[in-house]
Amino acid sequence: MAPKKGLLERLAEGPVIGDGGFVFALEKRGYVKAGPWTPEATIENPEAVRQLHREFLRAGADVMQAFTFYASDDKLANRGNDSSEKYTCRGINDAACRIAREVADEGDALVAGGLSQTPSYLSGLGKEHTQKEFKNQVDVFVENKVDFLITEYFEHVEEIEWAIEVCLKTGLPVVATMCIGPEGDLHGVSVGECAVRMAKAGAHVVGINCHFDPFVVLEALRKMKNSLEAAKLKVHLISQPLAFHTPDAHKQGFIDLPEFPFALEPRICTRWDMHRYAREAYELGVRYIGGCCGFEPYHTRAVAEELAKERRGLPKASEKHELWAAGLKMHTKPWVRARANRGYWESLKPASGRPYCPTMSAPDDWGVTAGDASLKQRKDATTDAEISELTQRQQKALNG
Amino acid sequence: MAPKKGLLERLAEGPVIGDGGFVFALEKRGYVKAGPWTPEATIENPEAVRQLHREFLRAGADVMQAFTFYASDDKLANRGNDSSEKYTCRGINDAACRIAREVADEGDALVAGGLSQTPSYLSGLGKEHTQKEFKNQVDVFVENKVDFLITEYFEHVEEIEWAIEVCLKTGLPVVATMCIGPEGDLHGVSVGECAVRMAKAGAHVVGINCHFDPFVVLEALRKMKNSLEAAKLKVHLISQPLAFHTPDAHKQGFIDLPEFPFALEPRICTRWDMHRYAREAYELGVRYIGGCCGFEPYHTRAVAEELAKERRGLPKASEKHELWAAGLKMHTKPWVRARANRGYWESLKPASGRPYCPTMSAPDDWGVTAGDASLKQRKDATTDAEISELTQRQQKALNG
Amino acid sequence: MAPKKGLLERLAEGPVIGDGGFVFALEKRGYVKAGPWTPEATIENPEAVRQLHREFLRAGADVMQAFTFYASDDKLANRGNDSSEKYTCRGINDAACRIAREVADEGDALVAGGLSQTPSYLSGLGKEHTQKEFKNQVDVFVENKVDFLITEYFEHVEEIEWAIEVCLKTGLPVVATMCIGPEGDLHGVSVGECAVRMAKAGAHVVGINCHFDPFVVLEALRKMKNSLEAAKLKVHLISQPLAFHTPDAHKQGFIDLPEFPFALEPRICTRWDMHRYAREAYELGVRYIGGCCGFEPYHTRAVAEELAKERRGLPKASEKHELWAAGLKMHTKPWVRARANRGYWESLKPASGRPYCPTMSAPDDWGVTAGDASLKQRKDATTDAEISELTQRQQKALNG
Amino acid sequence: MAPKKGLLERLAEGPVIGDGGFVFALEKRGYVKAGPWTPEATIENPEAVRQLHREFLRAGADVMQAFTFYASDDKLANRGNDSSEKYTCRGINDAACRIAREVADEGDALVAGGLSQTPSYLSGLGKEHTQKEFKNQVDVFVENKVDFLITEYFEHVEEIEWAIEVCLKTGLPVVATMCIGPEGDLHGVSVGECAVRMAKAGAHVVGINCHFDPFVVLEALRKMKNSLEAAKLKVHLISQPLAFHTPDAHKQGFIDLPEFPFALEPRICTRWDMHRYAREAYELGVRYIGGCCGFEPYHTRAVAEELAKERRGLPKASEKHELWAAGLKMHTKPWVRARANRGYWESLKPASGRPYCPTMSAPDDWGVTAGDASLKQRKDATTDAEISELTQRQQKALNG
Repeated sequence: MAPKKGLLERLAEGPVIGDGGFVFALEKRGYVKAGPWTPEATIENPEAVRQLHREFLRAGADVMQAFTFYASDDKLANRGNDSSEKYTCRGINDAACRIAREVADEGDALVAGGLSQTPSYLSGLGKEHTQKEFKNQVDVFVENKVDFLITEYFEHVEEIEWAIEVCLKTGLPVVATMCIGPEGDLHGVSVGECAVRMAKAGAHVVGINCHFDPFVVLEALRKMKNSLEAAKLKVHLISQPLAFHTPDAHKQGFIDLPEFPFALEPRICTRWDMHRYAREAYELGVRYIGGCCGFEPYHTRAVAEELAKERRGLPKASEKHELWAAGLKMHTKPWVRARANRGYWESLKPASGRPYCPTMSAPDDWGVTAGDASLKQRKDATTDAEISELTQRQQKALNG
Repeated sequence: MAPKKGLLERLAEGPVIGDGGFVFALEKRGYVKAGPWTPEATIENPEAVRQLHREFLRAGADVMQAFTFYASDDKLANRGNDSSEKYTCRGINDAACRIAREVADEGDALVAGGLSQTPSYLSGLGKEHTQKEFKNQVDVFVENKVDFLITEYFEHVEEIEWAIEVCLKTGLPVVATMCIGPEGDLHGVSVGECAVRMAKAGAHVVGINCHFDPFVVLEALRKMKNSLEAAKLKVHLISQPLAFHTPDAHKQGFIDLPEFPFALEPRICTRWDMHRYAREAYELGVRYIGGCCGFEPYHTRAVAEELAKERRGLPKASEKHELWAAGLKMHTKPWVRARANRGYWESLKPASGRPYCPTMSAPDDWGVTAGDASLKQRKDATTDAEISELTQRQQKALNG
Repeated sequence: MAPKKGLLERLAEGPVIGDGGFVFALEKRGYVKAGPWTPEATIENPEAVRQLHREFLRAGADVMQAFTFYASDDKLANRGNDSSEKYTCRGINDAACRIAREVADEGDALVAGGLSQTPSYLSGLGKEHTQKEFKNQVDVFVENKVDFLITEYFEHVEEIEWAIEVCLKTGLPVVATMCIGPEGDLHGVSVGECAVRMAKAGAHVVGINCHFDPFVVLEALRKMKNSLEAAKLKVHLISQPLAFHTPDAHKQGFIDLPEFPFALEPRICTRWDMHRYAREAYELGVRYIGGCCGFEPYHTRAVAEELAKERRGLPKASEKHELWAAGLKMHTKPWVRARANRGYWESLKPASGRPYCPTMSAPDDWGVTAGDASLKQRKDATTDAEISELTQRQQKALNG
Repeated sequence: MAPKKGLLERLAEGPVIGDGGFVFALEKRGYVKAGPWTPEATIENPEAVRQLHREFLRAGADVMQAFTFYASDDKLANRGNDSSEKYTCRGINDAACRIAREVADEGDALVAGGLSQTPSYLSGLGKEHTQKEFKNQVDVFVENKVDFLITEYFEHVEEIEWAIEVCLKTGLPVVATMCIGPEGDLHGVSVGECAVRMAKAGAHVVGINCHFDPFVVLEALRKMKNSLEAAKLKVHLISQPLAFHTPDAHKQGFIDLPEFPFALEPRICTRWDMHRYAREAYELGVRYIGGCCGFEPYHTRAVAEELAKERRGLPKASEKHELWAAGLKMHTKPWVRARANRGYWESLKPASGRPYCPTMSAPDDWGVTAGDASLKQRKDATTDAEISELTQRQQKALNG
């Protein structure tokens, strides 16, 4: 068998499709705890992680990102998380890489190792300390021969520059995405400037993941693109947005919306939203088109179906989903058969069935960022007294 | 090991938790085609079916219902479905039973074999023909030693009476659920009368599955309960509703809503809706409490968590979900930690993030039922001309 | 000049159009106080009352209902209302009749005198006492030679029977409307039975006013019609609904909606709603078609425009409003000129511009009715302590 | 009697309250035709105009703006408007001034004469021609001894500069407002630059009227204020917004919203919105605080009530409206009495009762401005063929 083409080679040829949001999907399946969001499932329930990888592969994903989100040692031990007592960063990352490789080789997919922002940075522990956390993870990725690296989910451009620096030492291609929107990073750096700094730091692909819906992310990416062009920097663009509608989110994204993380259901994107997302991303020039929290395999399949002509045809999972709802021709009810057409679904404005709920929310705006005491992370669990104090602050914020 | 307790014994002791909606969950994962909705995945991708069973078991389900929905031979060959060329009813059902048994025995769950309504009945082929379709399935269930039988998703009480009659011959406990709401069956039989007729036909457990949201289903079950009491019939009650909000559905349920089946996302219930559902169902006296289309493992876990005291404690998946959002105490952002309390989630009215969409929809009301020519089923595919005619009828209905 | 045709003669010939809601319209103009809702403006600001009469006449109203709502002596003195210190029932009613007659004679309209429910009844003071309050008003109507009488806004069929009895002694035609919906009166009498009892009590025209939107009122009137037919009673039907959408109101109507009375704006009906209302009312067989709270002159004009063919052509105010938005042909912007057609307005689903608000509300359900201590009326003002107690009860109700 | 204080003297002392929207209020009352929106009612129905003036005076307005909106000769003859056959600019303006003066002298109010943008400018007829239209109106204002002049409802800063130039020759104070939002004028001049140019042109008071809701207008005024300060220009600020919520409007305001002008009801502001508006305007430093289309007398009263302490106490109409809903203490139902408090109304999110409608709309974006052929105005009526062509363009725009 010929060796697989590398990431940069693929990007030069056409769109590369990323996979979806592991922490949210596995939380719903019962394998990840919302709150810490750490990926010990790679050791505890490898079959569940493997199955999700397979579904994304089948849906058309070209990348199997090892499930290593928030797997740094400092995060495994943060705020009462007892994962650190049972597992190490090394153990989790190693298991994640092996599962990802196993499934990637069932198809033509690449394996990526991923780093994300750290409690160390947020707590102000400085560059050396933070880079050590990164290095611990990267070492395992190199040992496992991943195909490239992703530094993702960073709110501060300074920290992602540190991460890129560590990654570049491996010689592997580096993809860098921040979880920011059109208003820029949490230190006040504009979104365009963030792109320029990531590119100047050496990342081969730059863009955005998480925190905002596909259309807000594309709005931010347009600004990134303009700034990169103005700075004459040539890098590929990547988008890995939420599969939740967030037109009402402020600077910090869906974390601040009152529905995060346990009542986001009414915001979930449809497959038709994803067709539109894929097309608009492609037309903007984005070539690495994936997803983040909320993306289920059928969202990824919709991206792959929209870009079937620009890629190598339909993904395997489309055997179970004829394009533009054509499978409904087999439905028993005639009015459902009548829905087997593209125009119907493209123009539908889906109702929520929730007339007692609003359509937009006012986000929590606590206005804190790196350096604020309440963002200092630590090993001890949050005490009841602390929670009670926070709840009072919440009530005060809600009552304006 | 002691033999497992049977269904009726368990129901006498306390609540039994059903599993969730396989066709919708597996459609999103890429293994079931919307339209025909047939379960050939039991043969094609057994690992995906097995994984979903495991997730429901882990979430607290006491029943593994073999994935045999719509697996009758007449349905596998309906309207251009080519499953019948590759698989038989016998083959699919057999595979489904073996997977269900394998997972059930990883815990203390029972295995159920399920029948659903047939194209034969809808096309007016009569009792003998229709019961033969049922018998073909039941034979496989008996060979595979399932613990009990479920006749589910019937829109016409007459057809379910025929199904119950076939099932009773096995000597196994029979659970009977129709997919109807407060307005009764599609022949105009009241919901209360449907319950009475199912009980008189010999079903041990009667109730409702699919087509309506949990709270509409409970409203209909209240009527069933009253009629059963008035008729002095003692049977257990079962509810297996959708996990979609459908306050705007008419008699025929979510099938008629314009969002069915590909834009139901904004209607998806939260886990907190399921806490309320479980409590209200239990208080109404329902003892078999499960779910249908839209139920994902985390919905079932919420039912199990709400009823932890009435059962044997928390399900295994609760290791990854502390009660009432307590896991958020480990979140890095203070305002998210502040959400780690029950009151917050119970009172939240979640926004849809879709301000350009309505909150309720007008269902398609084509007013056809069994006997109508457009409901006659057949082996041939729907032609383009037929679809075009249906689309015109749809446009006319929309412009009212 | 030939004498005007009487009400019954007109009803026999075709639709009679009622006027609109004086208390709400004059509250917005600054002449009526929400809370007591009493009509002392007939003495204090006769020019404002006269102008509103003129606008309704111009809009097509065939009836000038003297502005005597809640003008009984017991209401003028209720709960700290100081109107009774300055005015009497006799004085207010007399002024109201004279203004109504003046404007009616500027056209071909009739004058009606109106009675409404009393604090005396609500406080349990009995038939004799209550009828005396009615008699005081009726005497003034007779002296002023009104053309007919209206007993309106009754929540209890028993009280309206007493009112009808008093009115019939005058020999004038009697119109009787209760402010009830499909669920019937506040003693639990069904809406159909209320119609039958009003007709049997001798009313010439029976129906519904206030409390619900046009379409809910028509649903209730359909039930009235069925019951009257079943009882072989021949009377004319009248509808005088709100101009506010109230699909979410319970038995007691818009009073219980959280928005009553100072935040009902998003519920205000458009003129196109009124076209539909007029047509549906006419087709149901309603012949006295008017309005109540929320009706502004342009709503009445829309009713008259819809029924132009069934009446004597367009009302005078239509000189300033060409049918179905045709006046927009003169607009300066081309896309507004494009809206000069019926189809545009009939199919428009108007947005609220309020994405942070729900589309339906949960009404206050305090479950009290006649006889309950908290409904006993009295002359003294409500004390601060009483308000504080009520507010606590409200908070408790809101938090479930 | 001492002579009344002038506008500038009053503005130096504290807030001046403007009156409300005559064309919309009188359209609903049956005296103005939507489409042309011309004020021939001053001659046809002076009593209706007088009554509306009285209501605003009573509600607290310090200014009676003569009802001369769109009363230039070119507008009276535009697109088939036959007003020009019956009336002249001179006649209408003269009548308007006399009515305004009569009512103003019933209190302590000032009379303003108003100019608005012209078809002449829109059609490209140039400065000399356009200023002649202005001069014709101003001459009548001077003859009638109005207290000051308002140039309002201009979409192009160039045209308002021409208007200001004409007005300044009278020696009267000049107030200048454009109907623009945060995105600036329709030639692309920023909102801040518009303010600077109006001030440099000599206007004594500058700001915004119409087209956007109070809170969008204040957002734009904040930008005006910043630009004026940066340019070291000292003028007073004025806001006269819509009483319709327009968060979804684009550059051209509510004209483009699909609901304009006949389905804006769900967007109408409550009195509580106006309390907030008045407070925020005052805190921003705006001293002339009024309203435009949609403002009814009760909206103006709410502004006056909010600013009672900053002015000379409550307006006369507050006799019928105790502050913050206190009048509800006299209501018969206890749960309505419970609403007699400020917190209740301030925190209420009012429902629309329209669950089948969206909460925001997509505006028509035809992208035309001054100079575009479809904006050329003319005397002839729009033909049916032209309307049909526009409707097709509309359909195309809607189907996007």
